[in-house]
Amino acid sequence: MTKRVYNFCAGPAALPLEVLQQAQTELLDWHGKGLSIMEMSHRGADYTAVAAEAEQDLRDLLLIPNNYKVLFLQGGASQQFAQIPLNLMRHDQKADYIDTGIWAKKAIEEASRFAAVNVAATAKDYNYFAIPGQNEWQLSQDAAYVHYTANETIGGVEFDWIPEVGDIPLVTDMSSNILSQPIDVSKFGLIYAGAQKNIGPSGLVVLIIREDLLGNARSDCPTMLNYKVAADNDSMYNTPPTFSWYLAGLIFKWLKKQGGLEAMKKINEQKKELLYGYIDSTEFYNNPINPSNRSWMNIPFRLIDERLDKVFLEKADANGLLNLKGHRTVGGMRASIYNAVGLDAVQALVDFMKAFEKEHG
Amino acid sequence: MTKRVYNFCAGPAALPLEVLQQAQTELLDWHGKGLSIMEMSHRGADYTAVAAEAEQDLRDLLLIPNNYKVLFLQGGASQQFAQIPLNLMRHDQKADYIDTGIWAKKAIEEASRFAAVNVAATAKDYNYFAIPGQNEWQLSQDAAYVHYTANETIGGVEFDWIPEVGDIPLVTDMSSNILSQPIDVSKFGLIYAGAQKNIGPSGLVVLIIREDLLGNARSDCPTMLNYKVAADNDSMYNTPPTFSWYLAGLIFKWLKKQGGLEAMKKINEQKKELLYGYIDSTEFYNNPINPSNRSWMNIPFRLIDERLDKVFLEKADANGLLNLKGHRTVGGMRASIYNAVGLDAVQALVDFMKAFEKEHG
Ligand SMILES: Cc1ncc(COP(=O)(O)O)c(C=O)c1O
Ligand SMILES: Cc1ncc(COP(=O)(O)O)c(C=O)c1O
Repeated sequence: MTKRVYNFCAGPAALPLEVLQQAQTELLDWHGKGLSIMEMSHRGADYTAVAAEAEQDLRDLLLIPNNYKVLFLQGGASQQFAQIPLNLMRHDQKADYIDTGIWAKKAIEEASRFAAVNVAATAKDYNYFAIPGQNEWQLSQDAAYVHYTANETIGGVEFDWIPEVGDIPLVTDMSSNILSQPIDVSKFGLIYAGAQKNIGPSGLVVLIIREDLLGNARSDCPTMLNYKVAADNDSMYNTPPTFSWYLAGLIFKWLKKQGGLEAMKKINEQKKELLYGYIDSTEFYNNPINPSNRSWMNIPFRLIDERLDKVFLEKADANGLLNLKGHRTVGGMRASIYNAVGLDAVQALVDFMKAFEKEHG
Repeated sequence: MTKRVYNFCAGPAALPLEVLQQAQTELLDWHGKGLSIMEMSHRGADYTAVAAEAEQDLRDLLLIPNNYKVLFLQGGASQQFAQIPLNLMRHDQKADYIDTGIWAKKAIEEASRFAAVNVAATAKDYNYFAIPGQNEWQLSQDAAYVHYTANETIGGVEFDWIPEVGDIPLVTDMSSNILSQPIDVSKFGLIYAGAQKNIGPSGLVVLIIREDLLGNARSDCPTMLNYKVAADNDSMYNTPPTFSWYLAGLIFKWLKKQGGLEAMKKINEQKKELLYGYIDSTEFYNNPINPSNRSWMNIPFRLIDERLDKVFLEKADANGLLNLKGHRTVGGMRASIYNAVGLDAVQALVDFMKAFEKEHG
């Protein structure tokens, strides 16, 4: 019998059981072809159909307009921190960045190595518990692009609005909230996301880019980091991460079966309301984030009495509630409740938190 | 019932059935932990142990000396074509490259974008059917490194010797022949290999580098492409491709169980002798490569009557012998017979080729 725990890991994160079961069933013999999907040439008809179908399903889910390319890349979202400036800005240009926390800062730090960065706004004055409103932003007139982090996986703050930046391309890191609800892709120049939260296994980055932004890479950009090369070759300039791409495709089909992103939004709203609702109802736990900036996907919380942290985590583990420990840089707890973490998991967590409070409160 | 074909794909390539079976068995519930290996934090104790064990098993197999780091990277071997110059040579330096075919040329082309490249020898005069002996090489006195392609996956030529380059670091692309037999790692400064032939699924690169070569990356090298950053963080500066790394670890254990690389060498020698032996014994098929430079892993061959190519491939497919079509740039046939392709598969291929010759010869 397969035992399955509730997994609140921030990434690599829980995957839908149904998807894992399908991958398991066909792991040795994909669709009666006598070999594993992992053993197939990426240039063969079977695999290219799988790859194209994954792209189409993602386009359907996010209603991606025709003038956008979808790229399946490697290197993690961290590699994008360099790839974005290398592809979108000349040495003599500058780009605007919004500092909302640890991931935004990493993007800023790496971009600064390649050209001038203007930090147009920072959440520092809010202790990173809130996102500065656009009226507080000091945008440049001539920025190559404006970059922001749609969801801070560690801090637990999320944009509930899309910045207005006129004709300047808007670039966003959606690693930890892509596919959690519908978004208007047409507002963006570039959207990128590491797969290992809401898309699939690690080792894959999904990038959505407006076509007119292709072809501007610097002369010193490595060929493998050039978006246009990837776009011109359907993300197969070289061997792509075939298994991760295939599994992402299974996830996209699963999302469609759930009713698409409107349906996911409803469930995700219920999930976060259940958890924040309970946290706010007690003095035993605390989440400090400004309510309208609270992440739907990553919910950090603290026990008011930190001495109970250890026993909380031990008991959670013993109850099959895994990976609740907060990020090493911030401490406390964090529940990541991506699409594959169901309402049942959040209910189990809240039940456990209540029982723990009763025992120790 | 699981049907399994003989798969002669050049990559992503056949994997050992035993390894796939183990991955399948534990795909939903790794070692009774209640979650998939794909769903685990790369920083958790379970996963870091899997990762470290994979490294140690690779060290055992290749007898990697202690003053070498083993890195598990992303981006494919193609990304290394840029990463190597970005990490090992200054803008004002040059590097020596040996041109032995399509993959060497790709490495040369990309490196040339970052600094001066001296093509110290080329197989062009031999029609790429032979490797120029070292007496014909025009090495520079002051090269940052010497790069060669240990096995040309498309051309089917393989070095059966290790170049002598004194104190200059020797760099080699072993994507398609790593782990096929023992090698003396201490002769090299850097060895790299895309995983999707002899190591595991695609989306992973294994790189072995002498420690003194770390720390020389150019200031404009993206952080994610910097070997020292990877080495200092045990290849977990960011989220690694956890599933591919895990599966590579299973392959390493499988290789140990087969008796290690000496045992693989014996089987691989038998396999290539069986296939080349038959090809050389008939006028119906042909392999043009200089015998001492013939690849053990990738065996291109032609039907003398090219009009039979189509029916050959159709019948091979119908007989469960897949992916024998030669690379699109060269035509003809190619049998890739990596470690996971057993003597039984090569015997089945030779039997089929004989029967085909009898029918059509
Ligand atoms: C918002 C965000 N951006 C970037 C990253 C870095 O991703 P990767 O590890 O794939 O480089 C993460 C990782 O958790 C993240 O949450
Ligand atoms: C010898 C050699 N080098 C490099 C590559 C490129 O590998 P990747 O597709 O992982 O970039 C290949 C791919 O087949 C190869 O055979």
